[in-house]
Amino acid sequence: MEKRLAKLTSWLDDQSIEMCFIQSKENVFYLTNFYTDPHERLMGLFLFKNNEPFFICPQMEAGQAKEAGWQQEIIGYGDHENPWDLIHKALGKRQIQSVHKMAIEKEVTSYNRIENMKKIVNVSEFVSVEDILNEHRVIKDDKEINILKQAAKLADYGVQIGINALKDGITEMEVLATIEYELKKQGIREMSFSTMVLFGENSGKPHGNPGLKTLSEGDFVLFDLGVVLDGYCSDITRTFVYKSYNEKQKQIYDTVLNAQLAAIEASKAGTRIGDLDHTARTIISKAGFGDYFPHRLGHGLGINVHEYPSMSHTNDELLKVGMVYTIEPGIYVPSIGGVRIEDDVLITQNGTETLTNFSKEFTVIK
Amino acid sequence: MEKRLAKLTSWLDDQSIEMCFIQSKENVFYLTNFYTDPHERLMGLFLFKNNEPFFICPQMEAGQAKEAGWQQEIIGYGDHENPWDLIHKALGKRQIQSVHKMAIEKEVTSYNRIENMKKIVNVSEFVSVEDILNEHRVIKDDKEINILKQAAKLADYGVQIGINALKDGITEMEVLATIEYELKKQGIREMSFSTMVLFGENSGKPHGNPGLKTLSEGDFVLFDLGVVLDGYCSDITRTFVYKSYNEKQKQIYDTVLNAQLAAIEASKAGTRIGDLDHTARTIISKAGFGDYFPHRLGHGLGINVHEYPSMSHTNDELLKVGMVYTIEPGIYVPSIGGVRIEDDVLITQNGTETLTNFSKEFTVIK
Repeated sequence: MEKRLAKLTSWLDDQSIEMCFIQSKENVFYLTNFYTDPHERLMGLFLFKNNEPFFICPQMEAGQAKEAGWQQEIIGYGDHENPWDLIHKALGKRQIQSVHKMAIEKEVTSYNRIENMKKIVNVSEFVSVEDILNEHRVIKDDKEINILKQAAKLADYGVQIGINALKDGITEMEVLATIEYELKKQGIREMSFSTMVLFGENSGKPHGNPGLKTLSEGDFVLFDLGVVLDGYCSDITRTFVYKSYNEKQKQIYDTVLNAQLAAIEASKAGTRIGDLDHTARTIISKAGFGDYFPHRLGHGLGINVHEYPSMSHTNDELLKVGMVYTIEPGIYVPSIGGVRIEDDVLITQNGTETLTNFSKEFTVIK
Repeated sequence: MEKRLAKLTSWLDDQSIEMCFIQSKENVFYLTNFYTDPHERLMGLFLFKNNEPFFICPQMEAGQAKEAGWQQEIIGYGDHENPWDLIHKALGKRQIQSVHKMAIEKEVTSYNRIENMKKIVNVSEFVSVEDILNEHRVIKDDKEINILKQAAKLADYGVQIGINALKDGITEMEVLATIEYELKKQGIREMSFSTMVLFGENSGKPHGNPGLKTLSEGDFVLFDLGVVLDGYCSDITRTFVYKSYNEKQKQIYDTVLNAQLAAIEASKAGTRIGDLDHTARTIISKAGFGDYFPHRLGHGLGINVHEYPSMSHTNDELLKVGMVYTIEPGIYVPSIGGVRIEDDVLITQNGTETLTNFSKEFTVIK
């Protein structure tokens, strides 16, 4: 944690950025080890080139921020107080009335917060702190990799629970509820996104919603799920057929699997990220399903379930050791259904390691 | 839905606002009936004083937006496209290069989105659309009230499931998992926030986190939970004692309950909102627990679980027929634990109706 702060502060120094405001729960967690969702309330970290940092949060969370390990100043505010008044005071104590360059999270800091900021300090230029934090966060350290591995194991386990729950007439929501029940019972507080269990035609919508649809013979069964463990996410997708299948289903499955395996195979440090999407997309297009793969290959994975980098074919950046991301091609054919296969992949010195390990063999659930 | 759009467009007209951009999933849902979370991807509604509106969203969600009932232009974009280029084109078609006044969601629209907007259209002044939408949304219509009532019933049911699950040695997470399992099995896709089940001392943290703590005789048991039903939220808190209790616990409970009942009693159209908090806080302070009630009395409830208005003692606005909000005073004493009692309250012509109805009588769970 102190290393991360030092790295960021040294960047501020290099760039002659006098002040930095970080307010997303993910970046606050990355820099303070304090993970909380303050909802609409303001929580933020103020860092300076030449001054002591401070952390501001609702009063009732101040104790937990300290427990999490934040050792510098904490300013807690009550519901009846305006946090910007307290920030103004804290800046005053540091004799800051105006700065040339201030770094903010441009992607997520609201218009209003910037307006409030401008009222208490003169800022000549806002620069983004997100690119540099993405660069820092994209390379996972050993502790992070260890947590991501455990989170991926729990995602594997979630798929197994889902399979065990399948039976004629069960609803998508019953299976979903069973998966989350077993995971939460073990202490998982939060899934990394809304769990998906989709049967038959429903699996043909890449962003379908689970509901009260019941399971029948011949259905595709698509699971897409993940957990949050100690602040880090996992994300797995597996697709099965229930009791029987037709050749079209098998052809779709094999195509997706070949595309997914090829993209993993192509993953290694130094490879252009966009080439992975291209590799998978070419296989799917050649099989005649190009129009049915409407999304990018995957996304970075870490504190956010979707984070930098985007694994899209336009991304010219290169893979680096320590990156963790998903590879999840899919084919979605209306009236037949969809197949998606997704793993969490880590770039290592020697190639890759897939963190999710549930079998990808074409499987008929009996 | 068309009424809501017409009401907002007529406001644009009154205020001479040429253009309006709405991008939060809640306000998009309110105005289009399409409920989705596009995560980091752009989704937004563009409204004009003198032009046809359009809706932009990821291509793979375009069909669902139409199904939900949006009948005007939909612009879908792929992961490889820049949505701002498409917006630029759509504005071009409408011959819009510059506007005097543009309305945006200042609280939630990011700095970057505003910068992108400024690149494609000259805006002299940004005004907030949130105040007017809050004003519109705060008065619930019959259909909304009906859904909120059903959502509240499911919250009542969640508390009952939680009670039924209690036994010596069970963990907070096991009880939480059971509650969510039973609700999700019935088709509830999403809880309205992270369910809380807190035992003993853990209940003494107003924003405590459930974990693997086990239940013992004499513990407070605090449930705080709600569901999302058809896009609307419920939110209930109940606190019980397990098997036995001491006088201090009973005193805390009675004080919170008296405060809560008094605030409900004081609720009627025309009352100053801040007075409700004051009423509850006075009772808690007189009983000597004033320092242990660190949060506001409650919050508005609807599409967001926390929405306008804030039920804090500084709020000078008046209650109106059709408002729905929570009343949830609490007392949190370190080393003893905490009690919070929360209902969802609707302002009616004749006074109030509480939507959550689980018993608030002091109850020892055997």
